[in-house]
Amino acid sequence: MPDRPAAVGLLGGGVIGGGWAARFLLNGVDVRIFDPDPHAAERIDEMLENARRAYRRLTLVPLPPEGALTHASSVEEAVEGADLIQESAPERLELKQRLLADASRAAGAEAIICSSTSGLRPSLLQSQMAGAERFVVGHPFNPVYLLPLVELCGGGATAPETLARAAAAYEAVGMRPVIVATEIDGFVADRLLEALWREALWLVHDDIATVEEIDDAIRYGAGLRWAIMGTFLTYRIAGGRDGMRHFVEQFGPTLSEPWSKLVDVPELSVEFVDKLAAQSDAQARGQTITQLEQQRDDCLVTLLRGLRAHGVGAGETLAAWERDLARTVTPPPRSNGAAMAAPLELFASEVEPEWIDYNGHVTESRYLEMFGLATDELLLHIGLDDDYRATTGSYFTVETHICHLRELFAGDRVRVTTQLLGCDAKRLHFFHVLLRDGEEDPIATGEHMMLHVDAATGHAGPARADVATRVEALVAAHARLPRPERAGRRIGAVPVG
Amino acid sequence: MPDRPAAVGLLGGGVIGGGWAARFLLNGVDVRIFDPDPHAAERIDEMLENARRAYRRLTLVPLPPEGALTHASSVEEAVEGADLIQESAPERLELKQRLLADASRAAGAEAIICSSTSGLRPSLLQSQMAGAERFVVGHPFNPVYLLPLVELCGGGATAPETLARAAAAYEAVGMRPVIVATEIDGFVADRLLEALWREALWLVHDDIATVEEIDDAIRYGAGLRWAIMGTFLTYRIAGGRDGMRHFVEQFGPTLSEPWSKLVDVPELSVEFVDKLAAQSDAQARGQTITQLEQQRDDCLVTLLRGLRAHGVGAGETLAAWERDLARTVTPPPRSNGAAMAAPLELFASEVEPEWIDYNGHVTESRYLEMFGLATDELLLHIGLDDDYRATTGSYFTVETHICHLRELFAGDRVRVTTQLLGCDAKRLHFFHVLLRDGEEDPIATGEHMMLHVDAATGHAGPARADVATRVEALVAAHARLPRPERAGRRIGAVPVG
Repeated sequence: MPDRPAAVGLLGGGVIGGGWAARFLLNGVDVRIFDPDPHAAERIDEMLENARRAYRRLTLVPLPPEGALTHASSVEEAVEGADLIQESAPERLELKQRLLADASRAAGAEAIICSSTSGLRPSLLQSQMAGAERFVVGHPFNPVYLLPLVELCGGGATAPETLARAAAAYEAVGMRPVIVATEIDGFVADRLLEALWREALWLVHDDIATVEEIDDAIRYGAGLRWAIMGTFLTYRIAGGRDGMRHFVEQFGPTLSEPWSKLVDVPELSVEFVDKLAAQSDAQARGQTITQLEQQRDDCLVTLLRGLRAHGVGAGETLAAWERDLARTVTPPPRSNGAAMAAPLELFASEVEPEWIDYNGHVTESRYLEMFGLATDELLLHIGLDDDYRATTGSYFTVETHICHLRELFAGDRVRVTTQLLGCDAKRLHFFHVLLRDGEEDPIATGEHMMLHVDAATGHAGPARADVATRVEALVAAHARLPRPERAGRRIGAVPVG
Repeated sequence: MPDRPAAVGLLGGGVIGGGWAARFLLNGVDVRIFDPDPHAAERIDEMLENARRAYRRLTLVPLPPEGALTHASSVEEAVEGADLIQESAPERLELKQRLLADASRAAGAEAIICSSTSGLRPSLLQSQMAGAERFVVGHPFNPVYLLPLVELCGGGATAPETLARAAAAYEAVGMRPVIVATEIDGFVADRLLEALWREALWLVHDDIATVEEIDDAIRYGAGLRWAIMGTFLTYRIAGGRDGMRHFVEQFGPTLSEPWSKLVDVPELSVEFVDKLAAQSDAQARGQTITQLEQQRDDCLVTLLRGLRAHGVGAGETLAAWERDLARTVTPPPRSNGAAMAAPLELFASEVEPEWIDYNGHVTESRYLEMFGLATDELLLHIGLDDDYRATTGSYFTVETHICHLRELFAGDRVRVTTQLLGCDAKRLHFFHVLLRDGEEDPIATGEHMMLHVDAATGHAGPARADVATRVEALVAAHARLPRPERAGRRIGAVPVG
């Protein structure tokens, strides 16, 4: 199996299984999924739509063509031809053991078989399997298509090679495997989550705080740090110059104070569950799960992109995935050779809420950002792929003229049309028009001149013959279009005092 | 006391006290600080420099002039004239009791007195104070100048009014108070942090995972969610359409499994502390605390700005603070009336790592972003404050011409000079030059035409007389400068196929 599996078989299509389906499909992997629930298909479609929405914002690197989704009617049908099988059934040992045993008998000899369990020991899960050395726990986090963490934990019968192959497969779809070397219930992450969760339940149970107050005590404080660095590095910093040793010396003594009630767990009585559910309803303020999921995903994408810019944590994982995509995904052929006498339509987007500045208007530079993204697409269209950039050169903008004609609003769907105005061996002259969907009057126009720069010398130099040919054909075809009214404009003089 | 205190007295200048100093000073509050440690002043200066660096990126809204910092040589000197006193001494009950008692006798009758304790009960802390009704716990999180959370908890003697006044004072400096109604050790946030921390210590103690593996299990997974929503809302979503009740039913049973070791705490033996410190050193890879702090702050700023765009969690707090600043801070007078025959220098910045695109170059639109920020400063300079925008109107860009001449690199310090080229009643014509510090050859130039739009009608209309007068004086003064070589350029035609 190459790192990125060609096909996976998924057992279970709930919140976790559906998240796996979305991650694999958007990474170009074929998915065969088995879930006996009659609503599974609908739920998976919704999750896939959420994931597509998130990925459109997550990266500008071209994704592979989406994998094919097949709904299987049995375990055997789901695992047929799969390189990797991922079980995500409810947390019941017997159920998981049976599914994994069935899968192990139907799967190909080369397939690796993984479980999404959040806490059951792999040695127990693999006990009834054929070829149990191919089994490993691969524990993901919701939403699986966005959060990079996957905990890997092998059981007594697991071959070391299985761990390595699973790690490579998960990395190839943008994840960050953390290997838990010692088999324990709950692995590492859920031990931590569970400790916090139990304490949170006590605080609600004893009426110290509501679920909303507890959530606020996380997300306005330590939660912000935890997206960047874990508990230990955070406390190292809190220790000041003397680091962890100083921190432990200063705060260690409070460990023995009776702060935690974690000598026991609260009983989930009818009354307590009612209280939890009622407080949770109040906190959600009528927002549906879909609304909450989309808000969470929008924020996660913003966080992931932000962390990528700093090369930190999950942002590092995103950057590695993008490098891998750029290396391995061949963008679909953009030009069919027969250049048409019509402007190109290479870019479409939605006006993001974060584009609105503190005065309530779309920030000026966002218009150029959209034109810049349309220019990136134009360059791909004429054949400037990653390999061309590395070996030959690229076009760089030397001059830009923008006219602002009408206003944009958050949520507007927009597109950019592109007309080539001219070229010579080194230069590329074109005209972008930004349009709101369903309208013909431009929102803004951008006239651009680019210069071809040689990768080796860093100086202006001619484009490679195949690129030049494509550009000339487009320029010739577009010469039959009317020249844009605003091409060649200069800013007119007004009185000088 | 108005919401934002005019002066605060700080007792203790360590990681927490220094962070308070930075938050108050940058919000225009005078700070008198007492810390007997001879290195305190140096440490506070470093922290203040970190905070200035972060605030430059955090908001574009003008901040008030920085407050004055005074190092006091006693508790009495520190609290003199303070509206709010904040004690941040080490977590030793007798020490805090003594400091708070001394402060309560020296402070003005109207001052409120707060403790940064992360867990000691307010009733104990206030027991030796004069006027104990003025006391409340205000427990912040590191870095105090960036994280908005502050837990408020009153003791038996605390007046309700004190809680309300403290909450208003903290909100006025950009924080998010969460009131803990029931007095318990550790309040809410530290109960949760402590539960997770204890479990994490066991995992290291028992050699299940290293400190780095544990941190990774947080920051690549649940940590990303916790910046956005707390544990309860996260689990509500995980419950799918049936929400919290379904989640508790599905995962509740695992509560009783023996996952957590939190029936006890690990003994901080010499060997265990050595192990913790050694693993923490390995994880830090030689980075100093200052480097780690700056990386954390850079990421926090990016996260806060990202969440602000979505109006979620700490981003909401940031937006509220900015609205408050815009309402209450009068920008310093920008124009002294005597317009000089020299370009204005209104904008300076550093090229941020997040400006570099996936091809390793500064994204095209960032050049216009810098010109746009220089334009914002120009508008403030000619008198377009928040009030003018609300009541009269504003200038909007109608046309832009950018020439790219040389390349920028991450970390470059740059500035923009601005020359006014002309104006009439409705139009403003000017020319920006982007320069790298220490150089005279431009990196890029931007020629801009703006149109004055009336706030009431939304149509073009003349600027108010005082603004027009300032603009005309600048245009007349700048008319004595040589006209920029690239003003009035159009993009030249190249062959059309």
